[in-house]
Amino acid sequence: MMLTGLQSWEFKSKPAIIGAATVVGPEEGQGPLSGDFDFVYDNLEIDEKTWEKAERKLLEHASSLALVHAGISREELQFFIGGDLMNQIISATFAARKIGAPYLGVFGACSTSMESLALAALIVDAGGANYALAGTASHNCTVEKQFRYPTEYGSQKPLTAQYTITGSGAAVVSSQGSGPRITHATIGRVQDLGVKDPFNMGEAMAPAAADTLVAHFRDTGRGPEDYDLIVTGDLAAVGHAIVKDVLEQDGVSMNKTIFNDCGLMIYDRDKQPFVIAGGSGCGCSAVVTYGHILKKMKKGELNRVLVVATGALLSPLSYQQGESIPCIAHAVALEREEGLR
Amino acid sequence: MMLTGLQSWEFKSKPAIIGAATVVGPEEGQGPLSGDFDFVYDNLEIDEKTWEKAERKLLEHASSLALVHAGISREELQFFIGGDLMNQIISATFAARKIGAPYLGVFGACSTSMESLALAALIVDAGGANYALAGTASHNCTVEKQFRYPTEYGSQKPLTAQYTITGSGAAVVSSQGSGPRITHATIGRVQDLGVKDPFNMGEAMAPAAADTLVAHFRDTGRGPEDYDLIVTGDLAAVGHAIVKDVLEQDGVSMNKTIFNDCGLMIYDRDKQPFVIAGGSGCGCSAVVTYGHILKKMKKGELNRVLVVATGALLSPLSYQQGESIPCIAHAVALEREEGLR
Repeated sequence: MMLTGLQSWEFKSKPAIIGAATVVGPEEGQGPLSGDFDFVYDNLEIDEKTWEKAERKLLEHASSLALVHAGISREELQFFIGGDLMNQIISATFAARKIGAPYLGVFGACSTSMESLALAALIVDAGGANYALAGTASHNCTVEKQFRYPTEYGSQKPLTAQYTITGSGAAVVSSQGSGPRITHATIGRVQDLGVKDPFNMGEAMAPAAADTLVAHFRDTGRGPEDYDLIVTGDLAAVGHAIVKDVLEQDGVSMNKTIFNDCGLMIYDRDKQPFVIAGGSGCGCSAVVTYGHILKKMKKGELNRVLVVATGALLSPLSYQQGESIPCIAHAVALEREEGLR
Repeated sequence: MMLTGLQSWEFKSKPAIIGAATVVGPEEGQGPLSGDFDFVYDNLEIDEKTWEKAERKLLEHASSLALVHAGISREELQFFIGGDLMNQIISATFAARKIGAPYLGVFGACSTSMESLALAALIVDAGGANYALAGTASHNCTVEKQFRYPTEYGSQKPLTAQYTITGSGAAVVSSQGSGPRITHATIGRVQDLGVKDPFNMGEAMAPAAADTLVAHFRDTGRGPEDYDLIVTGDLAAVGHAIVKDVLEQDGVSMNKTIFNDCGLMIYDRDKQPFVIAGGSGCGCSAVVTYGHILKKMKKGELNRVLVVATGALLSPLSYQQGESIPCIAHAVALEREEGLR
């Protein structure tokens, strides 16, 4: 592993994602990516008595399935790197208690998916583990309750609001075995342009996505044209349009690739208008990446993909105290095994 | 870097702590380690208008001083790895916004000090950074308010209660330059024996400390006698006695070394009876390690030290929902430069 440029890592051994899994709730199961998920719960309660137990179960389920798909036992797993949006990332901690492996808790809000994957790749590439599991989850009703209003209130939302997805994605990274390879990661810097509205996460997070994309291209010498697909995490309709404009002004034309957003891909906004601007939450980029994108890579429909997971790092208290929303984005470059140069 | 045993890393390049800094509040400044801290604030408000801004300022101050002590500029720093006890680790995030470096947010409650130091050493050892900063902070009034009662209430506490320390510690890790070396890290597993009382963190965390100590000795082939000093993070009077008993029952005699606890070292419990069982909080093991222990190593009074930072990973909500307290401990082995074999 080597520091490349100012804030990127190039993984010399190109660790593989040897097994991944995704589980989602009913609304994500009615979206356009439904067929890419391993398990769709038919009830938002996820057969549990509290929303918090539901979120935990999603992560435990996805983690357990990822180990099965990787063909390894719990005992063979060295480290679980996980996090979520709950206070004190309690869902990941309870999942770690069940998984039993040594645990590194991380927090990057909705960028946790790629923060944990980047660290798993780093540890494996450095020889620090044979197998490392990266995972995250979100549940609509835990997250909306904590950061905004309980979903059950049915309060009206502005057109910039996003809908926290219910789902979990987990991936086993190893230097042994086959699967899509992790070639680079770019770790983001905190960006904060003063947005204070928790119903406008897309606008708040857009500068972080742009900053990390520019850094990734600068550090790796790559450009948009080197990727078949670049996805941001959960900027949704408002934020994704902003980041495209900002990059264009910076002289980076995203028209040279397919540029999409996991928050726009997971729902059909016409048929599911309650999602308003699109999806968000820790699980959003995790289930789209580990479900949809990895499957397309395995089929040979995608060779090189860059996932730029975005995170709004506010706390309920910092918002109540009138602070602006600090944001971050972490990028991980994936490459189809057969396409490796 | 190499995986050693089941859950430990041996850092082949032995990264150095080339600069560290600690800042504390007035009560820690009246304790026995007062002379080891770089700056003692004379007011618990840390000259700020809210407790949250005070905690953030502690971390910003310690981080800034650590860079000065390391002799590097903000621009030379590749990564900041930080966390704290606040919901969504907002203090670390705001500090990261000010520091400006790429940021990896981590959460291990009071084990954050050694989780962040282990990851900084891992990244440097793997060639992923020239300089990485690890830092954490806690403030008595932010933490007590969030997890128990606001300090200002003056509510009575049981004899098992601990006192969250006000302070921050930060360290710059590099493969270039001199300073105490980081030779090993052992990443802990979540342990939960069913304790539900947030006024008895020591008992809750003791099994995690014992588990990580046993794992460290098993993985590295070392024993208590190989260290001049082994400190747990913040078990304080109740938890520290338990872990010593548990280890004795496991056939590990801690009488072969000096076995202490940062929560017992930071205050004089006779002269400062309000701390009850002793200190706790993210800042506790950070300021004792980066202040007191590093200074003793530099003077040659300590050659090999193992710091086992302990963390109670509960959230205010998980406690209210009747869940038990999941705990963890991460260990980092430090070695005096001249004493390296």
